[in-house]
Amino acid sequence: MTIENPSIVYFKDRFIEESECRISLRDRSFRFGDGIFETMLVVNGRIYDMPPHLERLKKGLSAFRLGLDISGLKEICEQVIRRNTLTQGYVRILVSRGVDEEGVVGYLTRGSVPYCVVQAFARPYPGFKPLNLWLSSYKVSFHTPSKTNNALLYTLAMLEASDNKCDNALLLDTEGNICETASGNIFWIKDSVLYTPDTALPFVPGTMRDKVIQLWDGEIKEGRFTLDDLKSAEEVFMTNIGTILAPVSAIGPSGLVLPAGARTKALRRMLDKEIKRAVYI
Amino acid sequence: MTIENPSIVYFKDRFIEESECRISLRDRSFRFGDGIFETMLVVNGRIYDMPPHLERLKKGLSAFRLGLDISGLKEICEQVIRRNTLTQGYVRILVSRGVDEEGVVGYLTRGSVPYCVVQAFARPYPGFKPLNLWLSSYKVSFHTPSKTNNALLYTLAMLEASDNKCDNALLLDTEGNICETASGNIFWIKDSVLYTPDTALPFVPGTMRDKVIQLWDGEIKEGRFTLDDLKSAEEVFMTNIGTILAPVSAIGPSGLVLPAGARTKALRRMLDKEIKRAVYI
Repeated sequence: MTIENPSIVYFKDRFIEESECRISLRDRSFRFGDGIFETMLVVNGRIYDMPPHLERLKKGLSAFRLGLDISGLKEICEQVIRRNTLTQGYVRILVSRGVDEEGVVGYLTRGSVPYCVVQAFARPYPGFKPLNLWLSSYKVSFHTPSKTNNALLYTLAMLEASDNKCDNALLLDTEGNICETASGNIFWIKDSVLYTPDTALPFVPGTMRDKVIQLWDGEIKEGRFTLDDLKSAEEVFMTNIGTILAPVSAIGPSGLVLPAGARTKALRRMLDKEIKRAVYI
Repeated sequence: MTIENPSIVYFKDRFIEESECRISLRDRSFRFGDGIFETMLVVNGRIYDMPPHLERLKKGLSAFRLGLDISGLKEICEQVIRRNTLTQGYVRILVSRGVDEEGVVGYLTRGSVPYCVVQAFARPYPGFKPLNLWLSSYKVSFHTPSKTNNALLYTLAMLEASDNKCDNALLLDTEGNICETASGNIFWIKDSVLYTPDTALPFVPGTMRDKVIQLWDGEIKEGRFTLDDLKSAEEVFMTNIGTILAPVSAIGPSGLVLPAGARTKALRRMLDKEIKRAVYI
């Protein structure tokens, strides 16, 4: 049974009500977004494909020098699901560098001990719904192996997209290379080839992106592409934990309008099957 | 009288003890560093040169679409100083986009109302102390009119500097242009000319930077400079609220070693005089 508002969170070694969860004013993540996060899909009360999420989290902990032992994290996430009787939705892990000593003003941390918060969110299984993207005026440039709590740019890109009646944003780097959507990865199909930006570009490759690459039975070109490449595509779609795989039906304000193609539909069906197979054993 | 740990903060329309200040798990600044900040110098119980800080804050609120009325903020900052009987140190304003509605998972905010926190920190008046900078492996690229709560990069740059026994970091952009230090602005003197990076580069020009430019009686070149330009300098110094103006005596690992020059000392004396003049009326 899915409850509407899962309220029990894991916070500093305890399972407590969200409302009892008090973040300090000296928390590094509050003051500087000093931390990272992962969001994972829950279906049938089980986390789908957790290992790559934990792998990415580990890379992020190392890159951002967050000394946190995550050996018990899988069990903690499962506990959060059980304690909230969550069947369908997400589990989100947030890591903060911790709380600075009294009196610390600046960027250099003192006395902080990294910790994590694990939270559950109830959501229906994502339908196959076409999305509109807005070509963002914000440019990505930050190379990171994991999602970080420095997400001002993605927040602004989503606000801008929303103002323009779009569901998500398409983000380029400063050189005009297509990189990602504000909260997922982008793909397109042309002449039987699947295209997607190269991981050397400044975006985080998602776990659904990897699955699509594994499932695609044909040629794949990962590289540096511009809007012109995308505009000649036959089918465009995005992937992430929130949509699984969603067709992109329009990109504003460039004017690109596309129907949801047969190969996009086929890929989504394969992903749905693969997810169900994994969580109903 | 300076007290060691000012504890009264302004938080969501109230003056309360820092320990009573509870940040929500759904706070946008905790989850995404979704906010901005300002730090101001307090001498003789008075804020030095507040107008440019408020001006910069306003620009940041506009650029980051934070709808917060700051018309009463000057008085609030003065109240925080009075209630803590702070004579010497800093007042820090942090703006968060606010707390999302229950159930919001992603970047797009819902139901949040921006608010600010004002906090006091006691510190002695900064002495004239030479600093070592570490040439950072992290590159700046984010253009912003104000300091933001997305400060993971500056945190890492300071950690790296600290590991290398340095006091601060020297940051370049991806093209090798000198931009700033991790927490301040950089200047150097050569052949009677004062050099400093152009404000078109990705860094926030500080209020002390502006003062130095006003006080310098000679030619000033603002532009795009590389490490080679800096290496031939006769005197190097940095400015910010924390040091006021501090000579840079070494830049590691490049090997540049410099004595604190007479013109740097003269500029610092002028700044000290200007600060005292302003706060002892």
